[in-house]
Amino acid sequence: MTLVKKATGVLEEFDENKIVNSLVRTGIPLNTAREVASKIIPKTKVISTKEIYERVLGELKRVNIAYAEAYRLREAIMELGPTGFPFEKYIGEILRALNFQVTLNHVLKGRCVSHEVDILAVKNGRKILVECKYRNDWGGRVNVKTVLYVYARFLDLIDRLDEAWIVTNAKFTLEAVKYGKCVRLKLVGWNYPPGNGLEELIRRTRKYPLTVLLTIQMVDYKILLDYGITTVDKLASLTPESLSELLGIGYEEAFKIVSDARNFMKVLTHM
Amino acid sequence: MTLVKKATGVLEEFDENKIVNSLVRTGIPLNTAREVASKIIPKTKVISTKEIYERVLGELKRVNIAYAEAYRLREAIMELGPTGFPFEKYIGEILRALNFQVTLNHVLKGRCVSHEVDILAVKNGRKILVECKYRNDWGGRVNVKTVLYVYARFLDLIDRLDEAWIVTNAKFTLEAVKYGKCVRLKLVGWNYPPGNGLEELIRRTRKYPLTVLLTIQMVDYKILLDYGITTVDKLASLTPESLSELLGIGYEEAFKIVSDARNFMKVLTHM
Repeated sequence: MTLVKKATGVLEEFDENKIVNSLVRTGIPLNTAREVASKIIPKTKVISTKEIYERVLGELKRVNIAYAEAYRLREAIMELGPTGFPFEKYIGEILRALNFQVTLNHVLKGRCVSHEVDILAVKNGRKILVECKYRNDWGGRVNVKTVLYVYARFLDLIDRLDEAWIVTNAKFTLEAVKYGKCVRLKLVGWNYPPGNGLEELIRRTRKYPLTVLLTIQMVDYKILLDYGITTVDKLASLTPESLSELLGIGYEEAFKIVSDARNFMKVLTHM
Repeated sequence: MTLVKKATGVLEEFDENKIVNSLVRTGIPLNTAREVASKIIPKTKVISTKEIYERVLGELKRVNIAYAEAYRLREAIMELGPTGFPFEKYIGEILRALNFQVTLNHVLKGRCVSHEVDILAVKNGRKILVECKYRNDWGGRVNVKTVLYVYARFLDLIDRLDEAWIVTNAKFTLEAVKYGKCVRLKLVGWNYPPGNGLEELIRRTRKYPLTVLLTIQMVDYKILLDYGITTVDKLASLTPESLSELLGIGYEEAFKIVSDARNFMKVLTHM
């Protein structure tokens, strides 16, 4: 029997089905998922979740690079940083895909003070304050203090807003969830609410962040961000010629990046 | 003409009267203040506020160690750290001196969640939530986010509380002050409200933190803190014998510390 050591230090029995599940959740077809998982039988008595992750990623790369890219979605989002601004821009794109009208860093006058809100999202006349909490560490959690603070902000803006949301790539503490429910603030975290968290929103809207692409360099990513291109589908819609001009790189390199983006979108649409 | 370079980088003309004022505010008699200030004529074209501070401190030590100790009050409070807990204990002492009934780290059940409040202070039946914000850097400021958060906490506890205060050794941003006034949260900072800030509260109650004493060692300070002794007056009320036993130090050393504490209290009472 092999034991798996989780990030928290807890040990649990190795279970191939868990790998299959995580792959299927990613959008990979069941047959491929089973095939990949069957290759990850550990040879050591104890294996870390990180090691399993790396090995799964390696297998996926061999099958189809797009599978690997989709699988590392959470890591990719953490690469959006170092500040929270690219994350806000990216969440804005997801909201646009959900037919919200989006304004970033809007200043709203409240009852007591003015507030620069991360995102003002409007749909069917409803005005929503969206506060983004970006964390670039695993295991970071948004705690009740943040939810209390956003609620007070919402109360100060109550004359102008209908709802307030907090969107994070991290998780929420139990207290944060309890308080959020109680004051009716909508919390969207990586895995929260169950079946409707950020991961699911991304997979449903197909708005993947640029950082999933394994072919793209950090320096190019930053330039694209400045041009307002934060998602793979936008990159895939460019011609190699225009990308080459945008980034000041050769046609071949640009062609490779665009092909990777198009392959990613194609595979995901068929997933 | 000599220029003074402030911590912010701003230059202003050297003015002896400013030194006199700061000494008088500390509680030092006007004559002594004038005498000390007259000795601080800079010999260089530019002098930093820090250099002036150090030189004033040196002069005060020569006149009376207690004057120097009282003058370095803000520095002493920053030495309470590294965590915020000693600061909370110390603020608790000041509130007791103001005839409040004080409970530290009390858990209160709110409408939505439970809250561990720094200090619950009660007087004449009025229950006050006191949140302490300790900063161990110069120039640190408590911003509007903190005040928003405390206000939301207060709202969740509104069934059990009558008021909420924030007490800090730092300053508040203008937005924090504006919002605090608007939602009727009482803010007490180093220099706020004018004439009624933390410095004045300390001078009025004569509850000086142990860390003002220049004779006390950090290791002894920590032991005394564990025994609930956070202020100079409490230390001054001990006998050298009991202090020697408490700290496990020799009689002579204990005598020196107690004498320093008593001298400090005596000088301050005559100030």
